[in-house]
Amino acid sequence: MIKGTTTGPLFKSVYILGTGLIGGSLALDIKASGMAGTVVGSDSNGEALRRALDLGILDHHLPPTLENLRRSDLVVLAIPVLQLARMLEDGFAPGTLVTDVGSVKLPLVRAYQEACRQGSDYDFVPGHPIAGDEKSGPQAARRGLFRGARVILTPAREADPQVEAVAAMWTGVGARIQVMEAEHHDEVFAWVSHLPHMAAYSIVNSVLEKDRSWVSMSGGGLKDYTRIAASNPGMWADIAVANRELLLQAMAGLRTGLDEIYSAIESGDRDSLEDLFKRVATARREMR
Amino acid sequence: MIKGTTTGPLFKSVYILGTGLIGGSLALDIKASGMAGTVVGSDSNGEALRRALDLGILDHHLPPTLENLRRSDLVVLAIPVLQLARMLEDGFAPGTLVTDVGSVKLPLVRAYQEACRQGSDYDFVPGHPIAGDEKSGPQAARRGLFRGARVILTPAREADPQVEAVAAMWTGVGARIQVMEAEHHDEVFAWVSHLPHMAAYSIVNSVLEKDRSWVSMSGGGLKDYTRIAASNPGMWADIAVANRELLLQAMAGLRTGLDEIYSAIESGDRDSLEDLFKRVATARREMR
Repeated sequence: MIKGTTTGPLFKSVYILGTGLIGGSLALDIKASGMAGTVVGSDSNGEALRRALDLGILDHHLPPTLENLRRSDLVVLAIPVLQLARMLEDGFAPGTLVTDVGSVKLPLVRAYQEACRQGSDYDFVPGHPIAGDEKSGPQAARRGLFRGARVILTPAREADPQVEAVAAMWTGVGARIQVMEAEHHDEVFAWVSHLPHMAAYSIVNSVLEKDRSWVSMSGGGLKDYTRIAASNPGMWADIAVANRELLLQAMAGLRTGLDEIYSAIESGDRDSLEDLFKRVATARREMR
Repeated sequence: MIKGTTTGPLFKSVYILGTGLIGGSLALDIKASGMAGTVVGSDSNGEALRRALDLGILDHHLPPTLENLRRSDLVVLAIPVLQLARMLEDGFAPGTLVTDVGSVKLPLVRAYQEACRQGSDYDFVPGHPIAGDEKSGPQAARRGLFRGARVILTPAREADPQVEAVAAMWTGVGARIQVMEAEHHDEVFAWVSHLPHMAAYSIVNSVLEKDRSWVSMSGGGLKDYTRIAASNPGMWADIAVANRELLLQAMAGLRTGLDEIYSAIESGDRDSLEDLFKRVATARREMR
């Protein structure tokens, strides 16, 4: 599958299913890198597919039949995680190499393992690029989205030789690879990504329900939340449900944290609040 | 106090107490606009005052004695709101015109009214510029911070003729004036500004307490929160306590909103989540 680096492209053909922000940007970068002979794919949304073809994201459309997927050297599933889990469980033709870009990993590893138990014989290397923003759809796709970004791979099998091919694709578009256990990934991202999104949806929703017109009054605070809360609703509904248990733990943690601040405000304990805010303010220095 | 527009500056002298991001930027803009003969002031933090003088934020230092403040045409108090309330209650020399830039208004109006009841005879026009970010101190001050920004004035007296002078200062640095009742201001900003800050502190604190090292793993979500939570801790502790009742109501509203999302995730109700996220995602279009 993975060819020598001296001559020709790394992959004869890469198949991208889902031509939104992540899938579309990846297709553009793979094409620009010259690492693939052709980049083909599809999108279940006909309008998105047409746009992706118009924008030159795909070389051409190829329906996602098991045979078409098997014939590609690498299949990238850039679709919401619940659909992903179903596809992985349904299985692929023997020898197909599949990766994904989903924000939740353990349910996918489990779906793959279930498919293998039921006799499927394809390869799956779970991946999660830490990239993207609140925009979505092929029109949001752009070159360079993954340059310098981290991509977390959570191998589903010990010493999986196919991890190398998927890692090569990502490094070829400028990303840095980090390998992690799927469950650890899901716990960390429940706290640092999924929880912040749920909080943003909650806060903006609370303001909308209180008085819709107030949203336009916002300065710095709420504006950042409305941007986060403008992310793809279907994708985030999938993430929330797919990472249910770990996300609920994180949300319970947030509730405890809010209660602590609530009590300090209630009792007028200004100094405790300042101490807490000071501790938190330093966190920014630890961001990479 | 307020001079004719044909000759000379609008104010002979403006006094700025507090040379941080807001006070310092306002001093720079007032100087650049030529609307004041001199811009003098002070800062209770000696290091900040030295920096403000080094950076040319103030023409010169003048201790904030009641007599010095009275001699200025306009006194801008750019200090945390609890200190503000105490100063307003202590009172100023008769004829002094005072304004402020605090994020909470009703406690200031009350402090001023209390001072008046006790015989003080100065003028106070409460103001709140919707500008600034997570940076603080004189080194963060910059010209143009208020260009196009809204400034909310919440007059403490009916048909106060001094509102015009304060409004002229703000329009002179490019801001747009909006007049509002103090209590309405405090309720709106409890929801659109103070609540989002408390939530950001809570979320970042929850992650720090869960596992400090995770902060560096964050992509888009948590990163925005750490920026909000990097705001001036003392200033925000003051705001939270000063706007206690209305902020606690907003925080209770957020708790209800979080519980709603928690329940939907718990019961795996993906479609309700998507509906809610969709409704919220549209809020961004309503931002000015």
